[in-house]
Amino acid sequence: MDVGFVGLGLMGLPMARNLLKAGHRLRVYNRSRSRAEALEKDGAIAVDTPAEASAGDAVFTMLANDQAAEEVVFGGEGILKGLGQGRAHISMSTITVDLSERLAQAHHEKGQAYVAAPVFGRPEAAAAAKLFIVLAGEKGAIEKLQPLFEAMGQRTFVLGQNPAEANLVKLSGNFLIAAMIECLGETVALVRKHGADPRRFLEIMTETLFAAPVYRTYGALIADQNYEPAGFKLELGLKDVRSVLAAAETKSVPMPVASVVRDHFLSAIARGGANLDWSALAKVAAEDAGL
Amino acid sequence: MDVGFVGLGLMGLPMARNLLKAGHRLRVYNRSRSRAEALEKDGAIAVDTPAEASAGDAVFTMLANDQAAEEVVFGGEGILKGLGQGRAHISMSTITVDLSERLAQAHHEKGQAYVAAPVFGRPEAAAAAKLFIVLAGEKGAIEKLQPLFEAMGQRTFVLGQNPAEANLVKLSGNFLIAAMIECLGETVALVRKHGADPRRFLEIMTETLFAAPVYRTYGALIADQNYEPAGFKLELGLKDVRSVLAAAETKSVPMPVASVVRDHFLSAIARGGANLDWSALAKVAAEDAGL
Amino acid sequence: MDVGFVGLGLMGLPMARNLLKAGHRLRVYNRSRSRAEALEKDGAIAVDTPAEASAGDAVFTMLANDQAAEEVVFGGEGILKGLGQGRAHISMSTITVDLSERLAQAHHEKGQAYVAAPVFGRPEAAAAAKLFIVLAGEKGAIEKLQPLFEAMGQRTFVLGQNPAEANLVKLSGNFLIAAMIECLGETVALVRKHGADPRRFLEIMTETLFAAPVYRTYGALIADQNYEPAGFKLELGLKDVRSVLAAAETKSVPMPVASVVRDHFLSAIARGGANLDWSALAKVAAEDAGL
Amino acid sequence: MDVGFVGLGLMGLPMARNLLKAGHRLRVYNRSRSRAEALEKDGAIAVDTPAEASAGDAVFTMLANDQAAEEVVFGGEGILKGLGQGRAHISMSTITVDLSERLAQAHHEKGQAYVAAPVFGRPEAAAAAKLFIVLAGEKGAIEKLQPLFEAMGQRTFVLGQNPAEANLVKLSGNFLIAAMIECLGETVALVRKHGADPRRFLEIMTETLFAAPVYRTYGALIADQNYEPAGFKLELGLKDVRSVLAAAETKSVPMPVASVVRDHFLSAIARGGANLDWSALAKVAAEDAGL
Repeated sequence: MDVGFVGLGLMGLPMARNLLKAGHRLRVYNRSRSRAEALEKDGAIAVDTPAEASAGDAVFTMLANDQAAEEVVFGGEGILKGLGQGRAHISMSTITVDLSERLAQAHHEKGQAYVAAPVFGRPEAAAAAKLFIVLAGEKGAIEKLQPLFEAMGQRTFVLGQNPAEANLVKLSGNFLIAAMIECLGETVALVRKHGADPRRFLEIMTETLFAAPVYRTYGALIADQNYEPAGFKLELGLKDVRSVLAAAETKSVPMPVASVVRDHFLSAIARGGANLDWSALAKVAAEDAGL
Repeated sequence: MDVGFVGLGLMGLPMARNLLKAGHRLRVYNRSRSRAEALEKDGAIAVDTPAEASAGDAVFTMLANDQAAEEVVFGGEGILKGLGQGRAHISMSTITVDLSERLAQAHHEKGQAYVAAPVFGRPEAAAAAKLFIVLAGEKGAIEKLQPLFEAMGQRTFVLGQNPAEANLVKLSGNFLIAAMIECLGETVALVRKHGADPRRFLEIMTETLFAAPVYRTYGALIADQNYEPAGFKLELGLKDVRSVLAAAETKSVPMPVASVVRDHFLSAIARGGANLDWSALAKVAAEDAGL
Repeated sequence: MDVGFVGLGLMGLPMARNLLKAGHRLRVYNRSRSRAEALEKDGAIAVDTPAEASAGDAVFTMLANDQAAEEVVFGGEGILKGLGQGRAHISMSTITVDLSERLAQAHHEKGQAYVAAPVFGRPEAAAAAKLFIVLAGEKGAIEKLQPLFEAMGQRTFVLGQNPAEANLVKLSGNFLIAAMIECLGETVALVRKHGADPRRFLEIMTETLFAAPVYRTYGALIADQNYEPAGFKLELGLKDVRSVLAAAETKSVPMPVASVVRDHFLSAIARGGANLDWSALAKVAAEDAGL
Repeated sequence: MDVGFVGLGLMGLPMARNLLKAGHRLRVYNRSRSRAEALEKDGAIAVDTPAEASAGDAVFTMLANDQAAEEVVFGGEGILKGLGQGRAHISMSTITVDLSERLAQAHHEKGQAYVAAPVFGRPEAAAAAKLFIVLAGEKGAIEKLQPLFEAMGQRTFVLGQNPAEANLVKLSGNFLIAAMIECLGETVALVRKHGADPRRFLEIMTETLFAAPVYRTYGALIADQNYEPAGFKLELGLKDVRSVLAAAETKSVPMPVASVVRDHFLSAIARGGANLDWSALAKVAAEDAGL
């Protein structure tokens, strides 16, 4: 297929590369053009605007936050302008439910399809085409694009016609990870202050009740107090929890653990940890216990 | 071996039966004697006091709470009196760190061994000899008893010489489960109020990031709002979180998520849910969101 | 003086009336014009746009929220357009720190003065000219306007040159009230469940340690469970606590009690209480205790 | 009257002295006898046991915690033994609801009266006979003792026949103070990080909405970060909040702000602040904001 890709960061670059490997024709756009040009040797066509990247059958976006996503869509030479009628914008970024709803509305008014397709997985998973992709939007568009999703992920989950639902699921998943980190942090502080070995504690947890990769990964980071370099920056974790709390507030849902996590992200940032990995929530728990 | 077993409840009964199956000689004691007698057809010898149950090489206890454990050990015809010098008391109950320390001290003063051996697993796992057993105490005692642990569990984790550490690990694990239930409850309330399908949401979570049995088990209970009959009663969940908070307080460790969980257990009980399964924490989250 | 007044709600109307009583010439604007015309018999001149209300020496605004304040300032026939160079806009509304900063910047660029002058007091206090007024902004402007503040309030507190500080103080004060309500609600639930008399409890508190009018006022509402009609609507309380949390987040300040209060406002609204008085936070505390 | 006084600490000593000044005959007991002997020059009779101090018409106790109160009552030469039938024990200490209920029961069984009479006020107020005294217990006993209460306090509040209610009111009052400190701490951190003056902020609060002595006293300590020497030690504050949470737990009442306060007391202690004034809760809020 003939598609575009906007946003070639830590996640977007390997994802775009996987589309090229699978034989698709790819126009690529990135704010700092050098990252787009770097993909030319893999066969990509570097373009100058998001609108140009939208000249094919569909355009993918993978951006850091709402602001970046809004700019490439609504900006002067943006996707909304460049995308032909009946073509699809697939938004893979972790954006808010509110923005996703506005994007759906804007594309709908232009007769364009809009699919939300946020992903679970860190950069290594993106490179290995092992992402999990959560999809929601027009059924026809999703079906047609299935081969492209398969080129990037190990599995897709199709939800329904309302794109924002996929964003809600993604944000909720990120909250569950952040909450898990918080809880591991609290227990590790407890275990350490009782003079016990946190590595052994986490080993037992992850070999019995919590035998899931996400517990093992974060358990190891916390046990080793290994918060740099960040796989996922703490300030991005705060952004996602803030987005969850915003989605909850619109429907009057209190989420007290999310509030605790938010407060601790703020403490971590206040103490200089914005660029640490978000597993550094456990550092706050340790410091609050005098460790 | 020639051992005793005190406490034949939902967990203790199948555990004792597994010791009998493995060919050990077993004296059994239970407060309501009928449950002890019921084991006689499997070859057990029903006795009248914890002291009599302690006449062999070792005695196991599996009781509901600190109070019961204190009674069978310190009571008139208790284990402390009946257990010979050099013999071992293996406490498998989920008791507090504080009581475990007092038991260790009391047995030590009598020249008796004391091993803490709390378990992870529900009654089905006990019946199938699939428990995970966390061990701490005198190395010699633990090694000698290894075949008995193997008759009851699928795996043992040996920690070190300080018995209370095993109790701390057990309580921390139970806190992690309770916190997971709380977090699932909050996200499910969020998902439901946005009109999305909680089953589908939980399916995605447990097939991707959180592919651990404990998430699947509780995810299903929460999605189906299936809180009766209780696999583990909510009021026992409160007891365990209270024990975690007590262990944390002795070392000045704040655990704010544990505080949230405690508060919600209290709400659940105040609203009549003491005997529901502890997954009914999710019911509180739903009600707090007006569901 | 010759001034304008924009926003004639429950608070604005009596405040404007007090300016008229003090002999000032007043142009008044309100979105629904009837409320402006009602003031004509007191000598006011009803005008059609915020810009027209800004034709004198200064213009006061007293609006319900950020959105309304933004519209009357930045809108087509808004204050920014109508206010002459060197004249002052005095914003008395409870708005966010962020909007106050943007207003200061916008007026500064036009060579206009901007004073933030939020008030403490309910409608009765506004009618009796008993408001407390917190002032920040250009010293000269504040001094010149002093007689007008005296016509509306019992006392002014001048902070300094940065208008947003006055808004921060106002929001923090509202948080302290909301937190006080929450705490009274928690203790009243405790007292009631122990079978004691909450009225007697609150009487003791407000005649000893907490002999402040705000404790007496809210203590009485809570003891009588008298949440209607609202003196200050619960949903406005949520708005203010949200504004406090936003101001805190920009400086990385965790405020865990504010988070608790926010969560309980959401519960109250989820259960249908948006239009109750914000003292109905105590209703959530009671319900959470099974009352 | 002929009475006894047990416990001559920072509070008890000036209280006993006021009873002497009012012309009562006083037997005094203190664990370290020197403090009792020091009162002999004021006319007191130093005795060797709580039982001896109970030989008159009534005996007052003013002790630091439950443990001390239990010892002087239930101990070998304790009050229970020394107090004659029909005589009264007036417990003025801040003890738990649970202990107060046990004391009531024990005295009742001996045919002795028991009155709970906890006080609000710091040592200066005790010296000036300005305490507020909250009374509950047998009506006859309270009436007979009224002159003694008047010698120690500025006002009494009589609740009813159930002594534990007075303790509940006292503990709830202490929770309200601790929560107020926490909230002031959070807002002061907010104000400081916005570059505003916390003294000015607190001045405005305490001269408007919160014109109560308790706000002024603690506001000044917080604004000046003046946490030593302690008027009331932080670890005693934790004890009282723990007692409130225990009283709440027995009736299934969640008190989330009390949970937050407890967690922050623990952090303060973990960081070495056990002996600071309990207003140092504000130090935790500041540190959590990176100050």
